[in-house]
Amino acid sequence: MAKDSFVPEVVILRLPLYIRALTQMSTEGQTVISSKSLGDRLQITPAQIRKDLSYFGRFGKQGRGYKIESLVAELTNILGLNRQWNSCIVGVGRLGKAIINYPGFVPEGFKIIYAFDNDQSKVGQTVNEIKILPMNEIKAIVKDNNIKIAILAVPATIAQNVISDLVETNIKAILNYAPIAPKVPNGLIVRNIDPVLSLQSMTYYLD
Amino acid sequence: MAKDSFVPEVVILRLPLYIRALTQMSTEGQTVISSKSLGDRLQITPAQIRKDLSYFGRFGKQGRGYKIESLVAELTNILGLNRQWNSCIVGVGRLGKAIINYPGFVPEGFKIIYAFDNDQSKVGQTVNEIKILPMNEIKAIVKDNNIKIAILAVPATIAQNVISDLVETNIKAILNYAPIAPKVPNGLIVRNIDPVLSLQSMTYYLD
Repeated sequence: MAKDSFVPEVVILRLPLYIRALTQMSTEGQTVISSKSLGDRLQITPAQIRKDLSYFGRFGKQGRGYKIESLVAELTNILGLNRQWNSCIVGVGRLGKAIINYPGFVPEGFKIIYAFDNDQSKVGQTVNEIKILPMNEIKAIVKDNNIKIAILAVPATIAQNVISDLVETNIKAILNYAPIAPKVPNGLIVRNIDPVLSLQSMTYYLD
Repeated sequence: MAKDSFVPEVVILRLPLYIRALTQMSTEGQTVISSKSLGDRLQITPAQIRKDLSYFGRFGKQGRGYKIESLVAELTNILGLNRQWNSCIVGVGRLGKAIINYPGFVPEGFKIIYAFDNDQSKVGQTVNEIKILPMNEIKAIVKDNNIKIAILAVPATIAQNVISDLVETNIKAILNYAPIAPKVPNGLIVRNIDPVLSLQSMTYYLD
């Protein structure tokens, strides 16, 4: 299955949800699933699911549904998830420490292997077996270790400056926990983890 | 400005981003903004921004851009953010405690006022001045205090069961930190805070 030259980003954003739901259904004992059942689970229309998957070729047979195991394997392959992705974290305050200790990353193939902070009093300390390094070493370390993912857990006031520094490294993807709308150049992907934005997108429906 | 009877959810999801970016631009000293500048900041096309705003009436004048202050005020009003929203949290483990202590909610009008846990050893303890209550009190408390928002910070294994309990309360919106694809009935909104899904939606572009 070849990667299509252009798949809309909204489609790529849904694929991890499909994997998550399909994996759960598999643990519940299901082996085959219709686009309707998957859609019901995710509050997405069956037509949308079929269209999303059609970007990547033919899955399943008309009227027979999808084999969960092989669909998960295909989606995992499409997203490049059949390997380990090493990352670094920038900012080791309360939030950064919680992220380093979060047990959900490693089982999914994401491993934080370096931590950076510009606070000299933190440099040299260890959090969950990861030694905190000074920010001025990030460029060399990211390059030498071919790290493409950075997790940003610095205060909002300095987040944009740190992103500007990361642009000059090999980092291509940033998971941003700082509550800002960062300016990023083309070629750098950012996903924001921002519970306030999520809350603000629900209140519209509550009034 | 009347709320349109049907605004696509993707539009509602972008409005908080607009508020965030506009507020930042305002603190940077700007007073007027074009849809192009706002779009550049958010990696959204100007046409998309104009279309999103058109659901709610006319903003600004052709060719003159938007007045940031009044646009922020309008968007804040549309999303129902010109008031305080009280919420409760379910699950007061390491993650729940970090969420209760997160300083970003209150300045944005979101306040956690009750915490629930089914672990009897935690009940009665206090985290950031919030007393932990037993789960069997949630239904009455949520109703008596007209709480519509719940933050879910329980382990993945029990998250679906807790959501089923919440459905029977007045809760209408759930901010879910558990790494599951929850089944929810119509009328209940869920936003998932899930860093693994965000990471998985970036690796596609890195291979």
